[in-house]
Amino acid sequence: MESTTKSAEKRTYAVIGTGAIGGYYGALLARSECEVHFLLHRDYDHVREHGLKVDSVRGNFVLPHVNAHRSPETMPKCDVVLVALKTTQNALLPKVIPSLLKENGAVVIMQNGLGVEEEVGAYAGDHPVMGGLCFICSNKAGPGHIRHLDYGHVTLAEYSSDKSGAGITPRMEETARDFENAGITVHLAENLGIVRWKKLVWNIPYNGLSVVLKTTTDQLISLPSGRSMIIDLMKEVIAGAAACGYSIEEEIIPQMLDATESMIPYHPSMKIDFDEKRPMEIEAIYSNPLRAALNAGATLPRVSMMYDQLRFLDAKNREFARGLSSRQ
Amino acid sequence: MESTTKSAEKRTYAVIGTGAIGGYYGALLARSECEVHFLLHRDYDHVREHGLKVDSVRGNFVLPHVNAHRSPETMPKCDVVLVALKTTQNALLPKVIPSLLKENGAVVIMQNGLGVEEEVGAYAGDHPVMGGLCFICSNKAGPGHIRHLDYGHVTLAEYSSDKSGAGITPRMEETARDFENAGITVHLAENLGIVRWKKLVWNIPYNGLSVVLKTTTDQLISLPSGRSMIIDLMKEVIAGAAACGYSIEEEIIPQMLDATESMIPYHPSMKIDFDEKRPMEIEAIYSNPLRAALNAGATLPRVSMMYDQLRFLDAKNREFARGLSSRQ
Repeated sequence: MESTTKSAEKRTYAVIGTGAIGGYYGALLARSECEVHFLLHRDYDHVREHGLKVDSVRGNFVLPHVNAHRSPETMPKCDVVLVALKTTQNALLPKVIPSLLKENGAVVIMQNGLGVEEEVGAYAGDHPVMGGLCFICSNKAGPGHIRHLDYGHVTLAEYSSDKSGAGITPRMEETARDFENAGITVHLAENLGIVRWKKLVWNIPYNGLSVVLKTTTDQLISLPSGRSMIIDLMKEVIAGAAACGYSIEEEIIPQMLDATESMIPYHPSMKIDFDEKRPMEIEAIYSNPLRAALNAGATLPRVSMMYDQLRFLDAKNREFARGLSSRQ
Repeated sequence: MESTTKSAEKRTYAVIGTGAIGGYYGALLARSECEVHFLLHRDYDHVREHGLKVDSVRGNFVLPHVNAHRSPETMPKCDVVLVALKTTQNALLPKVIPSLLKENGAVVIMQNGLGVEEEVGAYAGDHPVMGGLCFICSNKAGPGHIRHLDYGHVTLAEYSSDKSGAGITPRMEETARDFENAGITVHLAENLGIVRWKKLVWNIPYNGLSVVLKTTTDQLISLPSGRSMIIDLMKEVIAGAAACGYSIEEEIIPQMLDATESMIPYHPSMKIDFDEKRPMEIEAIYSNPLRAALNAGATLPRVSMMYDQLRFLDAKNREFARGLSSRQ
């Protein structure tokens, strides 16, 4: 039996941010063969007592006992740190990430937007930093309670300062094996920049428009004016990517429109944040891509107007949120 | 005394649309030396019985008896037909205008947006068609009741198919005299295209943004994101005007920002229409300028996105309005 000990050693994961993304993927990994440590804040007591509950289109399940942590100080060093916070909380990361990485540990950024891998790469030393792009409709239904509505595959790609990409690395394959064992479909991509920009082709129109026009994906796509805006914004994002050196075929546009039509009516994450009076991920999804495009000589006027519209609504929204908290 | 009969003969005005604009200017003209006939629809009975009431920053007044008409058929032919309907009701005009014009009669279009003078010119025969651009904050407070909040001057310019403008015509001077006698400040302009586009430099950003972002002029201008959007949109409108052959100096932008800052917080007319679930003047203020610019080779991406956003919100709004009326 001793000869199998090494291969039976559990791979360890740290999940930073146990919400719609971290809670879902973390729970799947914990249900399989991995040892998963969850960093929690507000939900700590609840999860410590009741574990995690996942209502999923692929089958509901409950994990009555999980490794819950209130602070990174009680967490062990892990093989992989999954970053699944909202990007609006990324100021926490420089303190947390380095202390959680095993000698050969890697970071996977499961967040929206652009630029976070580069940021983390700057203080993660020699540890590889990957993007884990989640194509999923999921929400947090309550404390320790995730609702998975549709999709769920993950695209993994490793960050490299070289625009031609890092290729398929052993660390990506290792992580992908864990994910696949947990029932998560993984696509390995050679160039992180391309997949990040491709995801923005969907995120930039749908997140912003759902907030500004107070609507859902299905309404946006069913009206000619909505389709027209989406297509125009997608074209601008593709132009922005091209300026930055990442070539995306325009046929991605009809493909994404079709995919959204077959999707259930959905509130993108930014719409949910807005409705809950939380800060929106405007910097990661709009400001960073706009800055990257501008540095490469491309102005994206529609995206830029949407960015200003979101900043305007966010300012009014937070003023209201402050009003609420000061009344409490 | 007989020698003065002719000069004492009252100049006659027909007012089509007795709302915030037609009600205010028509009442001022009726209070002075003109004979004014008001075409009314829903407010006919009220105005017939109670006349018109104007609450104005320049002094309140009531006209207990006015020439109220339920139909153009009872109206006499007039020297001037003032068109002050919403442009969304312009389908009525081809039937009404020709029957109301004296042999030397003229039309004054006191509406927002672009393209109406050209449209009316096509069926007004040899009658001159002028634009009467109203720089005014006024609302309809109730049946036959106008609330005038700020400003009030009118820019008159005559339509000409020649882009260099019609110059200052005798008909403009005649109309201006009536207006000035009624206490209305008039500015005569040589080129209708330029003044129409200049007005769009204000109307396009403020009307649309107040609807899309559910806000007022003062909020828009007080946040950096709001100012940035306004300036970017204004620049695009100026570029559209230039493509169409109308040169507008960019210094109009700081001038207009200053003017709006000194204005009382204001809901532009499109915001009021939207809130009241009425159709918005999207065609006149957005579609016509966009088409004119496009025909001249200029795409205005921000204006175009705002146009789509407004069409989207209008479709949802009217669906709601239909839902309401079908429930009654």
